[in-house]
Amino acid sequence: MKISCQKDQLHHAVQTVQKAIATKTPLPILTGIYLNAQGGKLELQATDYEVGISCTIDSNVEEAGTVVMSGRFFQEVVRRLPGDTIHIASSQEDRTIQITCGSSQFNLLSLPAEEFPVLKPISSDNTLTVKDDLLRELIKKTVFACAADEARPIFTGGLLEVEGPEIRMVATNTHRLALRQQPLLSAASNVKMIIPAKILHELARLLVAEDPQEVTLAWQKNQVGIQYDDVYINSRLIEGQFPDYRKVIPPSYSTAVTIQAEDFLDAVERVSLLARDGEYNVVKFNFKQDHVLISSNNPDVGKACETVASRMDGNELEIAFNAKYITDILKNIAADELVFSLNTSLSPASIKPVNDENYTYIITPVRTG
Amino acid sequence: MKISCQKDQLHHAVQTVQKAIATKTPLPILTGIYLNAQGGKLELQATDYEVGISCTIDSNVEEAGTVVMSGRFFQEVVRRLPGDTIHIASSQEDRTIQITCGSSQFNLLSLPAEEFPVLKPISSDNTLTVKDDLLRELIKKTVFACAADEARPIFTGGLLEVEGPEIRMVATNTHRLALRQQPLLSAASNVKMIIPAKILHELARLLVAEDPQEVTLAWQKNQVGIQYDDVYINSRLIEGQFPDYRKVIPPSYSTAVTIQAEDFLDAVERVSLLARDGEYNVVKFNFKQDHVLISSNNPDVGKACETVASRMDGNELEIAFNAKYITDILKNIAADELVFSLNTSLSPASIKPVNDENYTYIITPVRTG
Repeated sequence: MKISCQKDQLHHAVQTVQKAIATKTPLPILTGIYLNAQGGKLELQATDYEVGISCTIDSNVEEAGTVVMSGRFFQEVVRRLPGDTIHIASSQEDRTIQITCGSSQFNLLSLPAEEFPVLKPISSDNTLTVKDDLLRELIKKTVFACAADEARPIFTGGLLEVEGPEIRMVATNTHRLALRQQPLLSAASNVKMIIPAKILHELARLLVAEDPQEVTLAWQKNQVGIQYDDVYINSRLIEGQFPDYRKVIPPSYSTAVTIQAEDFLDAVERVSLLARDGEYNVVKFNFKQDHVLISSNNPDVGKACETVASRMDGNELEIAFNAKYITDILKNIAADELVFSLNTSLSPASIKPVNDENYTYIITPVRTG
Repeated sequence: MKISCQKDQLHHAVQTVQKAIATKTPLPILTGIYLNAQGGKLELQATDYEVGISCTIDSNVEEAGTVVMSGRFFQEVVRRLPGDTIHIASSQEDRTIQITCGSSQFNLLSLPAEEFPVLKPISSDNTLTVKDDLLRELIKKTVFACAADEARPIFTGGLLEVEGPEIRMVATNTHRLALRQQPLLSAASNVKMIIPAKILHELARLLVAEDPQEVTLAWQKNQVGIQYDDVYINSRLIEGQFPDYRKVIPPSYSTAVTIQAEDFLDAVERVSLLARDGEYNVVKFNFKQDHVLISSNNPDVGKACETVASRMDGNELEIAFNAKYITDILKNIAADELVFSLNTSLSPASIKPVNDENYTYIITPVRTG
């Protein structure tokens, strides 16, 4: 292999695939980045078997070929190289890959390219095409609600669902649930798949192109392939039955409280300072006619109490929540005002942006003594 | 105690003393911040017995008194409080301290103030007064050369020395040595003291006032007191005999190489990428008439090589150093050009800014196979 390419583009490609480089693995080949040069293109790939990412850039290919080298070192070298044009050449002789740029020359040892599990794009008729900003919005508004705990794998992913003219994503750890839905502009066939949160985070990080673009998902059995621009991502899907989220959403509420979102977030964050060490991070909310009293009590440290103005339609109520479940949604709500809807101190409540029926967040209260 | 004060000022005071709050200690009182209100002033103190810091701010004192509360929580609460004026009041009744600001109210449990080891300012005739920017410069140009390893305590501090009309600071870990000196504008008596690197780092962090100010050091036995503006720091000194740094500095060099400092730093950092895992971080420097060849070789990963333009006065030479010892000085040299002075491949070398006789950095080469 002998090629040259723009440093910025190569850096972009390395940044794109780097999250798929395996760090802890008994298979050294998975710690590598695979380079495949042919026909004016250079393709980079990395995979840890759970997720595989490929990114293709323009390249001046003097001699086609494939090589694999340490992902960690290739990444660091490319990031720091001076100059604009990078030259990469492999030498069969000493099994090294020469990377030159300006006055710098690196010779990285190559890994056996024939051992690299090259990504096989999924060929399937089951496809869905959506706008990148729509997909990013679905992910960012829900993925934080996934469980971190691997004990119940089904909750470590987000459910992507197309049903009739709507697309939605749902995530839950059984104590709280986030649902974001959006009408689809063009018809699509119904689908349900659970994508690992790790891949969703990665997708949200990658889908930041300046120009709007389309993302195509193709799936087959327990695999999904995601294609946009010069990037292809292959991920396993989480198998199993996602719980029926409709049953979790209360059909109606007896009380609705409207609050400034930013003031509320600041106040809950302050009060939760003294709840932090306590079990479940418990913060109490005392909803009054024209204000909410937010309080915490940590026997080892002290007490905190805040008042935030609000407008109530319904009945006064005292209820306790895990503070983190409240601040998580407030950081993602992107609205000036929110509606906190409640029934009783022991039943699930909802937080929504004012006038937005497409975003639903349900939290289960904490029973206090 | 009952007082009010400006939030910004209280935040500044908490930030100033916070590094002295003990984190791992069998004595809970040392995890606290001590507040002493009287005569229009509020003094904050924290100490871990090795270092004690006090900061005094203006305050509206309605009722004088002293309290101690959890440093960690007080710090977090003050940082996040809304509004401009903070009210603090202690209640004997339930042993809590009430902190109110805007719509927020915190009640932190108090610690027994009578147990707090209140700082005793050092009263001594042994004093030295210097400008803050001079002291900061002495510290920043040398402290990075201290040993991190506590095995030989003498090398974990910087030597502050006044001798005749000069003040200097020296730090070494026995493999490299940094010396910064400066003429003193006013006469001072001779002194030698070894201040722990931890305190020096803290001082450099704190000495950033916009207006120039004077810092007064007073010492007695193994203690030094440092006073400036509204801050007082009390620290132990490191006991023992600092090695004679003059013996470490070669009297002359056979070769002098002039190099652009920034280019050299970038090149050494890149080449050291492939030395990182190797023993001692070894990077080789091959000084030629008009350039330096910088190279590394890591048998597990590969090789790197860079060329940087230079001007030589003397003889060509190949020599190896721990890359970190080179990049450390290059990051602190604050000069466009440096002079690398050498004798042989096995003798200590020096790096200095061009035309600055007040800054000396000596490094011992690594013997390579």
